Amino acid sequence: MTTTEYERNLILSSVDYNVVGTRPVRHDGADKVTGRALYGADFDTAGLLHGKILRSPHAHANIKNIDTSKAEALPGVLAAVTFDDFPQVKNAALDLGEEVTTLHDLQANILARHKALYKGHAVAAVAATNAHVAEEAVKLIEVEYEVLPPIMTAPQGMAEGAAILHGSLRTDELGETIDDKPSNVAQHFQHVKGDIEKGFADADVIVEREFDTVTVHQGYIEPHAATAIWNTDGRLHVWCSTQGAFTARDATSEVLHLPVSQVRVTPMEIGGGFGGKIPVYLEPVAAMLSKKSGRAVKIVMSRADVFEASGPTCGSNMKIKIGAKNDGTITAMQAYLAYEAGAFAGSPVGAGAMCVFAAYDVENAVIDGYDVVVNKPKTAAYRAPGAPNAAFAAEQVVDELAQQLGMDAIDLRLKNAAIEGTRRPDGMVFPRIGCVEVLEAMKNHPHYNAPLGENQGRGVAIGYWFNIGFDSAVNIAVNADGTITLIEGSTDIGGSRASISMQAAEVLGIPAESVRPSVVDTDSIGYTAVTGGSRTTYATGWAAYEAALDVKQKMIARAATIWDVDADDIELKDGVFQSSSDPELNMSFADLAGQLGSTGGPVVGAASRAYGGMGAGGGSFAGNIVDVEVDPQTGKTDVTRFTVVQDAGKAIHPSYVEGQMQGGSVQGIGWALNEEYYMTDDGAMANSTLLDYRMPTSLDLPMIDTVIVEVASDHPFGVRGVGEANIVPPTPAIANAIQNATGIRMERLPMSPVAIMEESWKQS
Amino acid sequence: MTTTEYERNLILSSVDYNVVGTRPVRHDGADKVTGRALYGADFDTAGLLHGKILRSPHAHANIKNIDTSKAEALPGVLAAVTFDDFPQVKNAALDLGEEVTTLHDLQANILARHKALYKGHAVAAVAATNAHVAEEAVKLIEVEYEVLPPIMTAPQGMAEGAAILHGSLRTDELGETIDDKPSNVAQHFQHVKGDIEKGFADADVIVEREFDTVTVHQGYIEPHAATAIWNTDGRLHVWCSTQGAFTARDATSEVLHLPVSQVRVTPMEIGGGFGGKIPVYLEPVAAMLSKKSGRAVKIVMSRADVFEASGPTCGSNMKIKIGAKNDGTITAMQAYLAYEAGAFAGSPVGAGAMCVFAAYDVENAVIDGYDVVVNKPKTAAYRAPGAPNAAFAAEQVVDELAQQLGMDAIDLRLKNAAIEGTRRPDGMVFPRIGCVEVLEAMKNHPHYNAPLGENQGRGVAIGYWFNIGFDSAVNIAVNADGTITLIEGSTDIGGSRASISMQAAEVLGIPAESVRPSVVDTDSIGYTAVTGGSRTTYATGWAAYEAALDVKQKMIARAATIWDVDADDIELKDGVFQSSSDPELNMSFADLAGQLGSTGGPVVGAASRAYGGMGAGGGSFAGNIVDVEVDPQTGKTDVTRFTVVQDAGKAIHPSYVEGQMQGGSVQGIGWALNEEYYMTDDGAMANSTLLDYRMPTSLDLPMIDTVIVEVASDHPFGVRGVGEANIVPPTPAIANAIQNATGIRMERLPMSPVAIMEESWKQS
Repeated sequence: MTTTEYERNLILSSVDYNVVGTRPVRHDGADKVTGRALYGADFDTAGLLHGKILRSPHAHANIKNIDTSKAEALPGVLAAVTFDDFPQVKNAALDLGEEVTTLHDLQANILARHKALYKGHAVAAVAATNAHVAEEAVKLIEVEYEVLPPIMTAPQGMAEGAAILHGSLRTDELGETIDDKPSNVAQHFQHVKGDIEKGFADADVIVEREFDTVTVHQGYIEPHAATAIWNTDGRLHVWCSTQGAFTARDATSEVLHLPVSQVRVTPMEIGGGFGGKIPVYLEPVAAMLSKKSGRAVKIVMSRADVFEASGPTCGSNMKIKIGAKNDGTITAMQAYLAYEAGAFAGSPVGAGAMCVFAAYDVENAVIDGYDVVVNKPKTAAYRAPGAPNAAFAAEQVVDELAQQLGMDAIDLRLKNAAIEGTRRPDGMVFPRIGCVEVLEAMKNHPHYNAPLGENQGRGVAIGYWFNIGFDSAVNIAVNADGTITLIEGSTDIGGSRASISMQAAEVLGIPAESVRPSVVDTDSIGYTAVTGGSRTTYATGWAAYEAALDVKQKMIARAATIWDVDADDIELKDGVFQSSSDPELNMSFADLAGQLGSTGGPVVGAASRAYGGMGAGGGSFAGNIVDVEVDPQTGKTDVTRFTVVQDAGKAIHPSYVEGQMQGGSVQGIGWALNEEYYMTDDGAMANSTLLDYRMPTSLDLPMIDTVIVEVASDHPFGVRGVGEANIVPPTPAIANAIQNATGIRMERLPMSPVAIMEESWKQS
Repeated sequence: MTTTEYERNLILSSVDYNVVGTRPVRHDGADKVTGRALYGADFDTAGLLHGKILRSPHAHANIKNIDTSKAEALPGVLAAVTFDDFPQVKNAALDLGEEVTTLHDLQANILARHKALYKGHAVAAVAATNAHVAEEAVKLIEVEYEVLPPIMTAPQGMAEGAAILHGSLRTDELGETIDDKPSNVAQHFQHVKGDIEKGFADADVIVEREFDTVTVHQGYIEPHAATAIWNTDGRLHVWCSTQGAFTARDATSEVLHLPVSQVRVTPMEIGGGFGGKIPVYLEPVAAMLSKKSGRAVKIVMSRADVFEASGPTCGSNMKIKIGAKNDGTITAMQAYLAYEAGAFAGSPVGAGAMCVFAAYDVENAVIDGYDVVVNKPKTAAYRAPGAPNAAFAAEQVVDELAQQLGMDAIDLRLKNAAIEGTRRPDGMVFPRIGCVEVLEAMKNHPHYNAPLGENQGRGVAIGYWFNIGFDSAVNIAVNADGTITLIEGSTDIGGSRASISMQAAEVLGIPAESVRPSVVDTDSIGYTAVTGGSRTTYATGWAAYEAALDVKQKMIARAATIWDVDADDIELKDGVFQSSSDPELNMSFADLAGQLGSTGGPVVGAASRAYGGMGAGGGSFAGNIVDVEVDPQTGKTDVTRFTVVQDAGKAIHPSYVEGQMQGGSVQGIGWALNEEYYMTDDGAMANSTLLDYRMPTSLDLPMIDTVIVEVASDHPFGVRGVGEANIVPPTPAIANAIQNATGIRMERLPMSPVAIMEESWKQS
């Protein structure tokens, strides 16, 4: 790593900020705790109709016929839609024969074409004067199904003779393209670095294991909801709960074949997303029902709909093989990752492959990724999508390797840790990153050497998420009372109104409370990418920084006019504009703001561009130290102590960084110990309620201790996105702790009491 | 006038625009004609309470006591408010004794302090679970009044021994400040140019007359409505029908003693304003009821409330004296203007004085203006406020002067017409203006020499409005489909979404339909002044022009990157970016827009400043040629032909310019012939419904023929505001036509059948 990068880090670390690093009350707090914030289902308008969706009761079935006539005849029903109403799907059917192609996956997931591909797959919808009539009406829709055998896992889907979901996929189980035989493999890719054969040949110790994980859901509190008005001038206005108003706009316009500017999306407040509120499900259906009825139409999912028909993350089958010399030098790492895509192509296996060995500077590596369709809901992003699966496998093998080498688990990782300049197997070369600093903070933490009790064990693991950058736009306007309004397109899931506002406040030398942030609709701000990929505080924050610089420069010009001095002579320091040549000439931001009206009118600032791309800023590492106690009678695991260390680059609002670290850890704990889609033999989810789908509550959890590491990125304040990396290490850290407590190496998730007892009997 | 200004006009007139000057369908058309646009009263939210205001039944009364206890005890009532709840009013009462001062007029008009100053003056308010309960509740409020004699006109208010409205006013009927005697004269000013004595001494002919006009209302269709939520974090959100979201924000925050940034105003669509929707009436009351109840509160005025308690324009008493030489040279002009302010200081007499002789380049002039409080609602702006009153008087005297001189009425005006460089009596020196061009267009119009029938007469008159500029902000964002979103703070009353969008479209070479304009709330755009003063297409349009230039420059930079040429080498012509050195390098706006994502991210443009001030661009002149037929038996006047000529500078959307000209003309016709507040002896309005307050319908009107004159202003396209000047000439033009038809010189408004018959008997 270059001295310059280190120096930059030292410089940024030593800056004495006024706002950055403090913990002001969030701007949207009062609205949210008093119940005044309006979420997806809260939008209402005159003449609103209520939509209801009929869903497939079968996991895999040909649809021979859909008859909505009886539903349409029910008094109070104003419209019914099927895939026939969507022009693109109909044309596709005409153009391409009976086969669904991946080009039309987006549409076919909105409303099934000729096949229902998972239980819960939307088949038809109605709009009626109230929700009860709509519910009765969908029951009157007659669908003729031809039931087919369901595929539930990647290995099942890849097996010879498996039932085929789509006739169009042509990749075989070896990853070769085959012209003559349909398959369930949507994609195979391979990352190769160095010489894997030589790497394993050089190894003194090799560990190899196979792992399986099952489908889990993000578990956001707020079900999906969308309301649409398709106006007579051809313009469509959608109000919905989404992680990205522009993403929802673009997807909706694509499904409906509209230019993007014909669609306006107003993002309501969002009651959790974690990646699952990026795709559209209801928006195009509500829109089409609105077009047919001439009225506004709202559709709200039930909790069962959310589980069965939104986008959980994938189950996976993985093989990991790692070799090392006796001194601990890892010589070769190999991964086979077969991820379930759900009903349509597109699992997060690509991201899993980017992250699986990201913490290691290894010379020889091969990663094979397989994207396999199965008869479950199409997967969506879930917090560092694909990375927790891979880490569950890889970090357990590293742990076992340390045991076989007789090395400390953190020392082994430190010896092989990725640093600036490391080239990952997928080709990405790291800029300055904080992998070493995170591992060192773990090693130095008192938790790491604290005593353990009976039936207790301790595990560690490290995880990585690469962060994304991309497009953001921010506008700022100065108020006469010395405050500013900040207009942004990033929906606020976890406090980003605060973390973005604070960056503008820092530049302008005003308190965070003097910024009034607004998240606006797609017609009212420049294009802004989704709130996801740990990008928002990084990219939109950077846009806020630049927009504030624009304001600062314009304010300085006004001060120069008032004082009749050169603008270059003026600086803004701690909220005071001052002339360097005449100390008498100084004015607070608020005083100058009050004079804008008389010195040329209002001041606004704007910034808008792509703030990096994939891997922006180098990404973030998170590590866990976890203690568990496993009841030998029942296999029940209690997490007794949990420490999470993460590189935040620079924590703009430490409380929200800690909140992200704690939230990701808790989701990881749930995934590790309890959460799963419990599937019946015919492909139905047997536990589609929050009582039966067992997420941890506060009673199940210890305090999650947090340690923020700050290794500056290329962002002006050094920010790294912190939303995701923290969900990566918990599953392997807990697995390693269970192994440490019980001697049992868990090769599957969840590590529920039943699973642990079964493994215990198998391995004993 | 300079050659340069003339050249500029010629150059701008000859530019071949793509969008400017065309007539696209307005962007908000479909929403408005299909009933989907949401107006003031349409806002709804969960838990909404309905507010109702108790109003004074007396035109003038001391308030001895207000008891809201019985109202508050009514089930369903959640809050009641009086002036005591407004901190500033209470403090004022403590600080300043019992007298209301002009400083507190704004608050005292919202809810009466110790005096009710007009019938309909708000005294107290309640919020209840529904409107019916609220209506019952206000009836239970007990108010103890001491009734005082009312003052109904300016001469009454200025008379010796008149009842006094406010103890704090100290200007006597001669305009002198008097320390020891309270008065009803809030202000006296005098504009002096040259030597008026000498001017009249030089005159061969002098005409002098006295005129009276009565209170009239703007007559907008939509009553005032406001909803407020005062949140527990101290922030107030208001949804209302207003001409200026920022103006409403500032006034509301002033009344409530809040920093402006604590108040957010979302402007709903507006169903007419004409100046009357600039002040706040309901907003602070709804806010205070929300604060006390903890709920959202909506208040909607009835039609009677609108007439009795919003802001009509003033009645007036005026004396005009004009002298001229036999060759038609006007040597002296003198005006005495006593305008009714309504219950609190602030009639439009200042604007009346700026406009009264604005069409004339006269050497000697004196204008005396008096602002007189009376027991009627506080006047608000009404389309060219103050100018129609003054024109009714002055343009009749000019007409009579022409008769006495034996000159053509237009020739006399042309001989004395104001031109570039003319200094008005109020001191303003005209830039390039279109007075001469308007008069010449009138003279050359076939209407001017068309034959007249029996009992018919023809009149002409010219009117002026000075236009304002001030603060506007516009943000533009480019969509990937080649369209743009345009974000503005100017509420759209008469098609300004279109006229502003078209200016951006012209700069970028895209169709008007490719612009998607949004009028947003005060948290989402830079400070933008009120839609009024004929400023919006001028100032906000100029901001759109500058924001579009900003976008253009950034788009050119992207094209330069793509082509690897110098940005200076690229120009945007008719929507195509092209390299001047290599003709092969060219790309449409839409094609480049589609590539922004891959060349650095989104492009936004912003512009924000004060675009001139009072008199921005020089203002606009409008002239009328009017034919009437007066029934000699009844005095009923029919307008048989009506031509309006106006200088638009440059008509961005000619249909909307014509619409403004027609709308202003029709309001002028109503004011001339029928409209009046018919007051009873005790100061009540006897005709406070739209059945009895007689506005002209289409059955009462001929086609209003329009002639647009274009003399460019300093605006980039030459725009002048056209919303107001057109209401100025109708009353005198019709009066002159009546005189021409009947020989009767009408010295009062309205010129109803009764008034004409009375004058006929008096003058015969």
